[in-house]
Amino acid sequence: MRNAIRQAVDITKVSESKIGQVDFNNLNFGKVFTDHMFVCDYVNGEWQTPKIVPYGPLTLDPSARVFHYGQAVFEGMKAYKDDHGDTFLFRPDENFKRINKSSERLAMPEFPESYFFDGLNTLLELENDWIKPGFGNSLYIRPFSIATQASVSASEADEYKFMIICSPAQSYYSGDVSVLIAEEFSRSANGGIGYAKAAGNYAAQFYPTNLAKKQGYQQIIWTDADTHQYIEEAGTMNLFFRVNDTLLTAPISDRILDGVTRKSLITIAEKEGIHVDVRPIKVSEIVDAATNGSLKEIFGAGTAAVVSPIKAFGYKGEHYELTPQENSYAAHFKKALLDIQYNKVEDPFGWRVKV
Amino acid sequence: MRNAIRQAVDITKVSESKIGQVDFNNLNFGKVFTDHMFVCDYVNGEWQTPKIVPYGPLTLDPSARVFHYGQAVFEGMKAYKDDHGDTFLFRPDENFKRINKSSERLAMPEFPESYFFDGLNTLLELENDWIKPGFGNSLYIRPFSIATQASVSASEADEYKFMIICSPAQSYYSGDVSVLIAEEFSRSANGGIGYAKAAGNYAAQFYPTNLAKKQGYQQIIWTDADTHQYIEEAGTMNLFFRVNDTLLTAPISDRILDGVTRKSLITIAEKEGIHVDVRPIKVSEIVDAATNGSLKEIFGAGTAAVVSPIKAFGYKGEHYELTPQENSYAAHFKKALLDIQYNKVEDPFGWRVKV
Ligand SMILES: Cc1ncc(COP(=O)(O)O)c(C=O)c1O
Ligand SMILES: Cc1ncc(COP(=O)(O)O)c(C=O)c1O
Repeated sequence: MRNAIRQAVDITKVSESKIGQVDFNNLNFGKVFTDHMFVCDYVNGEWQTPKIVPYGPLTLDPSARVFHYGQAVFEGMKAYKDDHGDTFLFRPDENFKRINKSSERLAMPEFPESYFFDGLNTLLELENDWIKPGFGNSLYIRPFSIATQASVSASEADEYKFMIICSPAQSYYSGDVSVLIAEEFSRSANGGIGYAKAAGNYAAQFYPTNLAKKQGYQQIIWTDADTHQYIEEAGTMNLFFRVNDTLLTAPISDRILDGVTRKSLITIAEKEGIHVDVRPIKVSEIVDAATNGSLKEIFGAGTAAVVSPIKAFGYKGEHYELTPQENSYAAHFKKALLDIQYNKVEDPFGWRVKV
Repeated sequence: MRNAIRQAVDITKVSESKIGQVDFNNLNFGKVFTDHMFVCDYVNGEWQTPKIVPYGPLTLDPSARVFHYGQAVFEGMKAYKDDHGDTFLFRPDENFKRINKSSERLAMPEFPESYFFDGLNTLLELENDWIKPGFGNSLYIRPFSIATQASVSASEADEYKFMIICSPAQSYYSGDVSVLIAEEFSRSANGGIGYAKAAGNYAAQFYPTNLAKKQGYQQIIWTDADTHQYIEEAGTMNLFFRVNDTLLTAPISDRILDGVTRKSLITIAEKEGIHVDVRPIKVSEIVDAATNGSLKEIFGAGTAAVVSPIKAFGYKGEHYELTPQENSYAAHFKKALLDIQYNKVEDPFGWRVKV
């Protein structure tokens, strides 16, 4: 809990929780939401009193700008419960800072820090029963902000809604994934909004991803739009390549999301003496490394998937399979991260924040 | 009116029109909407029965994908009334085809042609009184489609809403505009979604445009994201440059919207013997032409602004003013286009479609 005096959050509780109807052993990601949601309206140049209300539908004019001009940003975080029933967030300041960075790029008003954390903490206390203990169980938290102003003129809105909704999540093992390296489509431009968690960045990926799926790949590794010779990131994960015992990851730019998981892994690796080379990665060197056997692992890093091993990739019509490793870095990092998140070990970096 | 047998459109009329409350001499673009709207839901893999209902708010789950992943496309068209009270659309097939092209790129279901035109025609008949005769008056028509499915998993939705809303518009003279040529920010990437009328493309432009406004420019001329050496288009207009008596316009690509106004102007110009050079345009040649006096005019072309003269541009800290022309191509093309749209002249190209 933060020490700051809580902003007044207006709370309206549900009369009866729907938690009894939820099968926590069969959760589809992002489908079931908790009893309450956090809502704060931006009107007349000011964020109004934040509210927590029963989870329920929004009423918006058909001309609301979010529908027409995509003024919308979001975040993805998780709350974890340890064996003593205490709840923790992981580096929540990073998500708070990032949603405001995204908002700035989309010409949306920044959200005040105290509103964000007071709202989030109050909401998580209310939804305490929805956060299940046990490794892999978590409450997925989705803060987002949308332009609600009713008018289809193509400029930034002057009315917004900032919300936080929460969805219980299970650890799921979807199998190691195969990815296709992009040769034609791209995710973001120099000077564009790729570094922002802007809604529009995601819809743009579905069609190329569907084409990849038809070829048997679950996701795309995006490359630079200009030459398609440099590796950027995946749909909702940053990427790591282990070549012999060195880890490679692309530097952050205005085209790549600055992932919290990615930077946490870099810090953990450095502490453990694993060398991380943060530099532009050529597709050709990954192909070469796969061919000569020095490419040991590829994995994605992101809040939803944690650390996600990639077992194969496709490029220019060729398919490259990686050999499973005994001492996998991916498995090691995943455990190191989850141990911190679930309060199983010391937290030398001060990342865990108790709710 | 099309000959095709009308799809059944379920109609619920308002009990009383709000038209009496509208001041048609003081219309802000896109703020006032007519009495009814067209709505069609996509559920279980099918577009359901289209409906026309009183204009009113939408009710959507906070997890609807449009809010989180920007799956949203739109169109912009106008209905024009001539002096006999007949209403016309301008090349509506182009808008219909384009929204489906946009939808395909955003992994959204295409909308059936008969539903679109029957819905649109029925709606326009109902809203006949909202379409005011008189040069420059029109009814702005906004078809759009949004992902409504309630779930925050990052893939395409399986539920959508296709809608048409209408807003009366006046001809407005906003003064000749000054534009800033982009040197750092960009609008779209190779292999991206720039050619689609995707909601997310627009929000991305607001922040850079606001920075330009601080320097006294109303809009940005986007350049290629890669080198910033080639001119692409403006926020909601394609661009034409008149160098001596030749018109230059950039070719359509996956980064540039294939504007109906642009291609209509090319056709008109060719018919009139004005040479149009459709080819990549270097910023440097425009700067040179401005410096040596051969750059006579710049204008934007788009449904909302029709033909919009640009009087000056900024680039690399320099400001270039154009000399007003006696025989302006912009003024000529604007009149030629409006004459066709308002049924004042023959329509040799078959562009006008009577409602
Ligand atoms: C595009 C993109 N890249 C990377 C990530 C991983 O970021 P984080 O580790 O902060 O979840 C995400 C998901 O948040 C993302 O949307
Ligand atoms: C990005 C963009 N370019 C150009 C145009 C002009 O296209 P049209 O002439 O079809 O209205 C528009 C507006 O529709 C647009 O949004």
